[in-house]
Amino acid sequence: MQFLPIKRLRTLDQNSKKFHFLVYILKDPNQMNLSAKSTSHPLPLLELTQMANAIRVLSMDIVEKAQSGHPGMPMGMADVATVLFRNFLKFSPNDSKWLDRDRFVLSAGHGSALLYSLLYLTGYPDMHIEDLKAFRTWGSKTAGHPEYNHAEGIETTTGPLGQGLANAVGMALAQKLEASELGAEISDHKIYTIVGDGCLMEGISHEAISLAGHLKLNNLIVLFDDNGISIDGPTSLSVSDNQQARFKASGWAVDEIDGHNFEDIFVALTRAQNSDKPVMIACKTQIAKGSPNKAGTSAVHGSPLGAAEIQAVRTNLSWRLPPFEIPQDILKSWRDIAEKNALVYEAWQKRWAALPKAQKEEITRRRNGDLPSGFEKAFQSLTQKFITEKTSVASRQSSQMVLDEISTVIPELLGGSADLTGSNNTQGKSMKAVTPQDFSGRYIHYGVREHAMGAMMNGIALHGGFIPYGGTFLVFVDYLKPALRLSALMGIRVIYVMTHDSIGLGEDGPTHQPIEQLASLRAVPNLHVFRPCDAVEVAESWSTAIALKSTPSVLTLTRQKLPLLRTEETENLTAKGGYILRSCEGAPQVILIATGSEVEIAVSVHETLRTKGVPSHVVSMPCTTLFDEQDATYKKSVLGAGLRVAIEAASPLGWDKYVGEEGLIFGMTTFGASAPYQDLYRHFGFTQENITAKILEKLGE
Amino acid sequence: MQFLPIKRLRTLDQNSKKFHFLVYILKDPNQMNLSAKSTSHPLPLLELTQMANAIRVLSMDIVEKAQSGHPGMPMGMADVATVLFRNFLKFSPNDSKWLDRDRFVLSAGHGSALLYSLLYLTGYPDMHIEDLKAFRTWGSKTAGHPEYNHAEGIETTTGPLGQGLANAVGMALAQKLEASELGAEISDHKIYTIVGDGCLMEGISHEAISLAGHLKLNNLIVLFDDNGISIDGPTSLSVSDNQQARFKASGWAVDEIDGHNFEDIFVALTRAQNSDKPVMIACKTQIAKGSPNKAGTSAVHGSPLGAAEIQAVRTNLSWRLPPFEIPQDILKSWRDIAEKNALVYEAWQKRWAALPKAQKEEITRRRNGDLPSGFEKAFQSLTQKFITEKTSVASRQSSQMVLDEISTVIPELLGGSADLTGSNNTQGKSMKAVTPQDFSGRYIHYGVREHAMGAMMNGIALHGGFIPYGGTFLVFVDYLKPALRLSALMGIRVIYVMTHDSIGLGEDGPTHQPIEQLASLRAVPNLHVFRPCDAVEVAESWSTAIALKSTPSVLTLTRQKLPLLRTEETENLTAKGGYILRSCEGAPQVILIATGSEVEIAVSVHETLRTKGVPSHVVSMPCTTLFDEQDATYKKSVLGAGLRVAIEAASPLGWDKYVGEEGLIFGMTTFGASAPYQDLYRHFGFTQENITAKILEKLGE
Repeated sequence: MQFLPIKRLRTLDQNSKKFHFLVYILKDPNQMNLSAKSTSHPLPLLELTQMANAIRVLSMDIVEKAQSGHPGMPMGMADVATVLFRNFLKFSPNDSKWLDRDRFVLSAGHGSALLYSLLYLTGYPDMHIEDLKAFRTWGSKTAGHPEYNHAEGIETTTGPLGQGLANAVGMALAQKLEASELGAEISDHKIYTIVGDGCLMEGISHEAISLAGHLKLNNLIVLFDDNGISIDGPTSLSVSDNQQARFKASGWAVDEIDGHNFEDIFVALTRAQNSDKPVMIACKTQIAKGSPNKAGTSAVHGSPLGAAEIQAVRTNLSWRLPPFEIPQDILKSWRDIAEKNALVYEAWQKRWAALPKAQKEEITRRRNGDLPSGFEKAFQSLTQKFITEKTSVASRQSSQMVLDEISTVIPELLGGSADLTGSNNTQGKSMKAVTPQDFSGRYIHYGVREHAMGAMMNGIALHGGFIPYGGTFLVFVDYLKPALRLSALMGIRVIYVMTHDSIGLGEDGPTHQPIEQLASLRAVPNLHVFRPCDAVEVAESWSTAIALKSTPSVLTLTRQKLPLLRTEETENLTAKGGYILRSCEGAPQVILIATGSEVEIAVSVHETLRTKGVPSHVVSMPCTTLFDEQDATYKKSVLGAGLRVAIEAASPLGWDKYVGEEGLIFGMTTFGASAPYQDLYRHFGFTQENITAKILEKLGE
Repeated sequence: MQFLPIKRLRTLDQNSKKFHFLVYILKDPNQMNLSAKSTSHPLPLLELTQMANAIRVLSMDIVEKAQSGHPGMPMGMADVATVLFRNFLKFSPNDSKWLDRDRFVLSAGHGSALLYSLLYLTGYPDMHIEDLKAFRTWGSKTAGHPEYNHAEGIETTTGPLGQGLANAVGMALAQKLEASELGAEISDHKIYTIVGDGCLMEGISHEAISLAGHLKLNNLIVLFDDNGISIDGPTSLSVSDNQQARFKASGWAVDEIDGHNFEDIFVALTRAQNSDKPVMIACKTQIAKGSPNKAGTSAVHGSPLGAAEIQAVRTNLSWRLPPFEIPQDILKSWRDIAEKNALVYEAWQKRWAALPKAQKEEITRRRNGDLPSGFEKAFQSLTQKFITEKTSVASRQSSQMVLDEISTVIPELLGGSADLTGSNNTQGKSMKAVTPQDFSGRYIHYGVREHAMGAMMNGIALHGGFIPYGGTFLVFVDYLKPALRLSALMGIRVIYVMTHDSIGLGEDGPTHQPIEQLASLRAVPNLHVFRPCDAVEVAESWSTAIALKSTPSVLTLTRQKLPLLRTEETENLTAKGGYILRSCEGAPQVILIATGSEVEIAVSVHETLRTKGVPSHVVSMPCTTLFDEQDATYKKSVLGAGLRVAIEAASPLGWDKYVGEEGLIFGMTTFGASAPYQDLYRHFGFTQENITAKILEKLGE
């Protein structure tokens, strides 16, 4: 749909202390501008202009001081941002984590100076003018691109294009889920995001837009900075999409405005408040608006304006103060916004205070990321059950058993899969699917959209209140890697459930068989990769991953059946990363180190070696990162002395660290092949016979 | 646009021996069906039905025999494929690499049984009935998903969704470029691709569709298997896109047909022949059409039908013969296609024969992937120039200098960048940009579409005649990794130019600073990763990469300035992967191993150690893979004995292999930060002072 033109006023309801939006639908579309420009209009145009110019001047000065950065986008979107923050955005600088705040996501993260300017101008207490001066320097809050946790009010890390848009879709979904649980009195916020041409060219934008439209996330408002400029030059060099038609094709409401006309901006944002669909507003802007000689050119996309042009902008905007000084009246206009919002905030706090104590505690627990009291016990009884019943199933299936149990104990678990639910075994039996009509479920059909799934899970985790996990095949982690990297960089708890984790998936062949993925993931800082060898390690991996509040985890699971190897109750050994699973009497001659489905083979080699009088240990190493974190004594006690042998049906890269120069590595140095998995294991040498023979040969040298 | 309804007949022009398409535009759209169904219509409906049923039965039997695979898609698209191959596709089973053949890309690669059936039925000499029986078994030509080079007629490896579509866009672009050079008499083919719901949900589809529309690639025809089923169930679980509107928004011509109505299919494909835009035909189909009890359900997406249902299909289709037997008359109908095509093929051969000898040789050279005779000399003089002029620039800039020179020597080089031309330095000075109006250029503005760039480069390399390379920042290799993996799996020459290759990019911060990317790439089989340390190594890396016909390469280049370290003319040392760059007299106590921008630091450490009486070697290791391929003697001569120290501003994963358990690794175990790069190098310990101190400390232990 295109919106019907309406007129809308934002007023504060003195009784409820909520903002009211008075909406008049104009019958004649041609009346719109007339109406918006009538004298009774509430927009003080001069004040808005000055407020927007404050963003322009601050942003260009920030970039100039650093001699690095992107001034064009902040100057171009200053008018839109001013109306958004002044007239629409619900936020509290003194309580930046307020549950019911609107979220503002700067998907076009290179325009970070815009965000930092806004945080300073609106009075976030930890954003000082000195922080703006420290833009892009060591240890500052104001990094080149917005970094989550560097300053209050930065809702997510952006910069890699398209990610913020998909984060915003995840946040909008999380709000819908939250509201279905808590009601609109507690959760009634919107998600706003500014996206650029680059965001909309990236493939992830399609996945995010398509799913947002499908789910009818009408709490999501996308502001498209339609400036027609990208780094290589005018966007006409490489793109001819009709973005409005594109969004409409995915079920969005769309609008197009002059992004420098305050009334246009106001009217469009007003119309967006009551949409039944997500909304995209194409804001026609001029990059670096206000710069007399450089506006509208790609030269200002990613370079400082330079001293001469900075002076020309000051003259052009009649801006007299030197860099980093804002006239008091303009600063007051900006700071007044928080005061108006404070009334809304206080009214919400009263509603919050009226909630039952137990509910408040539960909400607070979940928002703090703490786990429910039954958490550990649930895992203990699961492990006991696996041991008692000798559960010997594929690890994707034991993962399903874990989820069936714990999804009832941890209500904030939010599952999903990129169209592989039955293969990933990711839907806990109590988990109902979310639909556009019903957000009370706790399972998301992400569709064949791995990348959006990853970035949406980031948005869900950042929004708070949920622990998202999502599944696909391990090889397709490549499709979502840019999002996973941001999970790790931000330090948020997102769990990636990656099944079909080796050539063990068999017939689907090399396109579907991961080889380099395990090494690739282990190279990512602040990420835990688990490759459990049996049902007990699966339970331990889940338990450890869920308890790691500040890192994402990847669980890699098999398609093929695995025997139960951990037959006795112990502490959580997976939490140590690696441990001795089978030992010999006295000093071992051989230490067999394996992960996942190859531990079974290692145990078999161990037993065969024993019959040949060669004592060995088997080390199961479900998480190399956690093992690396153990103290030297423990590590030495596990790896010991002797011939060390690593067995993993994946790239050998990284295993030299554990086996040393004299050790042996059984890995995959080529891609896989299409055949039943037993044939593949035989052809690629992952058999007890081959490995035992090679070890004996090595010992005999 | 929507097409005007037309009527079209394919007839063979006896003079030119080319197919002619007689097109009648019907004034009244309502006449279309009437016309198509008129008795004068050339389509033999019964024959077509039998031909399509041959695909259905073969495909279900192939999957049943393997007890693994996807019968639903081949059965659903059998009718469309029959008309396409019988009435439109230009191909020669006996010359499967014919320059002017139409390309058929099965983007929905899980439906591989469709392709294998077609190759057998149309008479490709290397596809025997025994090959079909060997589906998904070790060593067969008929892998689970189509694998390039496993059998003639498989134009690309597909399976990871969306890749084939983007390959097809690349092929269509390559055809346009080829035709602009050779003329339509020699190059006048089309690219057809079958895509599924999954392909169109993947983000890469947006990038590919958007760029194809922008470039007006009217030689591209997409057949969308619109069956409404994905693995999780009906697509309505997760997608509501109006695909026709979506393609139109990107400048495509679209059509919608009943994918089981031969006349509809015929008319739509006819209309598509003369479009001025790329064409998408939404074919409404029933998955597993022909299966009385399972058609239209997700159960047949990825599982064999089972013996009972197989029998029910045979009854339903009145198919009497046992598995893998095709009635002679039906097989003859299929084999006759090649005979008709043979006339067209022979006519083309005559036109080819009439070309000047030198032109034929040049075309043949390029299609064989051989390099021009001036290749080595051009690189020699470049290297000499760098040494003479002591070229000390960022490696992205020396790469630019290389491209400026060699792009004139190697006319088949086809450059591009994902909207970072000025940063990647990828546009050779003689390279004109390709536009929708002019395909004579040799530079592609891919836009902010890394993933499509990778997959399109695969398509371009597969099409033949060009050596594609494309640029982005190294960190954004994550965005295109699934395509790069397929370059490596297929063994095709695609060159990825990845600049800004470490924290050395400075202020843009951790979102833009690669950490794990080098290790991740080195773990990929059949891929060469180059990280040159100066201008000479840059030239050697380019020379080596271009000469590697059967592997893709990644060149990682700096943003920051590098000194010239290779000051004497030698053989191509980069081709050895690693070599001694600076040596000491006698045996070294320390071996410093570094890559790229860290080699400069290693040289500085080497010199400082010398002043302290500690002799050392510096090993430059631009390509670990090539070094690993050297013989043991050479490797030992380079790495020697002594304290081995690796220095690389990236994840340490993988370096243990070269430094051993007693060695030192200076790497990045965390993400980077936003600051000037000199500050980052200091803070993260990549300085002569820090490294020297740590080495002396270690030696003193």
